[in-house]
Amino acid sequence: MTDPAGPRATPTPPTSAAVARRAGVSRATVSYVLNGQAAGRVGEHAQARVRAAAEELGYVPHAAARSLRAGRGSIVLLAAHADTVPVFGPLFTRFLAGFQTALHGLGYTVVLHGAPAASPVAAARAWAELRPAAVLTLHGPPLDAAAVELLHRSGTAAVLTHGPSAPPGAHTLLLDQREAGLRAGEHLLAGGRRRIGVVRPAEPGLAAFAEPRLAGVRAAAAAHPGVRVRPLDLALTEESAARLAADWPRWDLDAVFAYNDEYAMLLMRALQDAGRTIGAGSPDHIAVVGADDLLLARLLRPRLTSVRAEITAPDRIAELVDTLIRAPGTAPATHRLGTFHVQARDSG
Amino acid sequence: MTDPAGPRATPTPPTSAAVARRAGVSRATVSYVLNGQAAGRVGEHAQARVRAAAEELGYVPHAAARSLRAGRGSIVLLAAHADTVPVFGPLFTRFLAGFQTALHGLGYTVVLHGAPAASPVAAARAWAELRPAAVLTLHGPPLDAAAVELLHRSGTAAVLTHGPSAPPGAHTLLLDQREAGLRAGEHLLAGGRRRIGVVRPAEPGLAAFAEPRLAGVRAAAAAHPGVRVRPLDLALTEESAARLAADWPRWDLDAVFAYNDEYAMLLMRALQDAGRTIGAGSPDHIAVVGADDLLLARLLRPRLTSVRAEITAPDRIAELVDTLIRAPGTAPATHRLGTFHVQARDSG
Repeated sequence: MTDPAGPRATPTPPTSAAVARRAGVSRATVSYVLNGQAAGRVGEHAQARVRAAAEELGYVPHAAARSLRAGRGSIVLLAAHADTVPVFGPLFTRFLAGFQTALHGLGYTVVLHGAPAASPVAAARAWAELRPAAVLTLHGPPLDAAAVELLHRSGTAAVLTHGPSAPPGAHTLLLDQREAGLRAGEHLLAGGRRRIGVVRPAEPGLAAFAEPRLAGVRAAAAAHPGVRVRPLDLALTEESAARLAADWPRWDLDAVFAYNDEYAMLLMRALQDAGRTIGAGSPDHIAVVGADDLLLARLLRPRLTSVRAEITAPDRIAELVDTLIRAPGTAPATHRLGTFHVQARDSG
Repeated sequence: MTDPAGPRATPTPPTSAAVARRAGVSRATVSYVLNGQAAGRVGEHAQARVRAAAEELGYVPHAAARSLRAGRGSIVLLAAHADTVPVFGPLFTRFLAGFQTALHGLGYTVVLHGAPAASPVAAARAWAELRPAAVLTLHGPPLDAAAVELLHRSGTAAVLTHGPSAPPGAHTLLLDQREAGLRAGEHLLAGGRRRIGVVRPAEPGLAAFAEPRLAGVRAAAAAHPGVRVRPLDLALTEESAARLAADWPRWDLDAVFAYNDEYAMLLMRALQDAGRTIGAGSPDHIAVVGADDLLLARLLRPRLTSVRAEITAPDRIAELVDTLIRAPGTAPATHRLGTFHVQARDSG
């Protein structure tokens, strides 16, 4: 599989000096033309010559060097472990796509950084090596005050975290998971349910979502004397769901908010296989509510009731990031990413 | 929400010169210590002083600058549209997580680049601005010969694409989708099926997977005279599935390979709602086969038979990328990412 002539050396990338020589202009002129600052400085013909020379040589400006010239970085770094991306669900993935497109339109290069790190500071150091203008942590990598400080000192203008709270110096992008639990709880209570289980996923990395959802159900229940709320541990396996269904008589619950649609589907099937009836129709049936409003969750019978997030338009969040980059002293604040409501179907 | 003192200026990042001054050593010494080349060159005490000074100043080496010193880049860029990440399924997502971890262990900074681009060359130019040592395109952004050439000329040592074929100059990482169709077809034929539908998803971006899967079923059928293979267009909505189920008598099919488990679940439910019986047990039932072996696909009844990918260990692929970066002249070749087999259950 190896070239018989042996490995070639990596070619030296063409420099802006080479472009200047070929076009017969100064390096400053090349910089003006290729960074969109030629108007009023460089004539049409010279601009065309510079573009042709850059094309012929295959010259590409270096993002980091361009950042230095422009006085601010052009990289927006989204930090997320690759293995946690699926937990966001399709709604959030669509948001992410729109967010990237909007930032691209504002002149930023968006990179998703998914490497593991031994500590928040180690993670921040790895991100800082790319000299990002902004860092937005999505899920997984934790941030602390020292990590935020390191990012600011190495030139990152804006640090944002997606989560219930941020360390000092960082902005918060909040999709309030507590509200998801609150809406699910209110819905079940309005349907007359009084003994509510709340699934706590056994899978790692989900506690940051699951705990506030549980707290939300508890907050809804607090207004109703005599209502019980009970956490239920469940792993995303058929065995775990079968065990929970077999134990069901011990808890004597008439409803469950199952964290999300996947856990809800799994538990609903296990309860049905154990002879239970699922549904909102009768107080003798078990009411099941999921979250994320997955298409697949409408394929089981009864159709799954689900808590659904309405996420803020991605270009508004992109504009926020741009604003924070341009005004790095803006005091940290909480910016809401969206709200939740219940999509009622037949299961609960 | 704005700081009453007004925006602060972004601080100038500390330089290696500042670290050198504070530690009372030369910049070369700072470089040796912070890039792991101090052994035999710099004494223990000086190393400790440099580390302390870097810590106090919050100095982080610049990835691009370090790349220049080391003679090769440290960035491995994975190119994928954010909105296509979900199509990979959990198996591929787990692979991606392991791949990132392994590359991190080999000293690379992995970034996922998801911005849209007007053309292959425009995409390549955006990637080249980050001066990656390697570019691996996962899904979505197309590559052509000019884009590969641009990457090579701007210093990218290795260009790899995940797909059935690569443009000149790029390596191919192949998870042969044709094989998925071949295995599904062979399984259905072995079960006595002779009139096989193959779902073609209406959703954009999936044709690169769907067409070779269809070709694989056709290849399996070619060995059996009299077998019919018919493409079926299906969007991932309940309405589309209901229409296809209503049209079923026109096609007179006894089996369907439904692209993946999501389309399979959707179609299976629609066929059941239209009064059809699904299963492998009787020739009068319709056999349904999905792909990806999702947990949720085992929750419908009958349990879904599914084509499952066995993907090569991620650290072996990471080592391949490292090898190609170190030997940039290696002639482009095809490297297999894994194989497929059928997980037989009850649906087909």
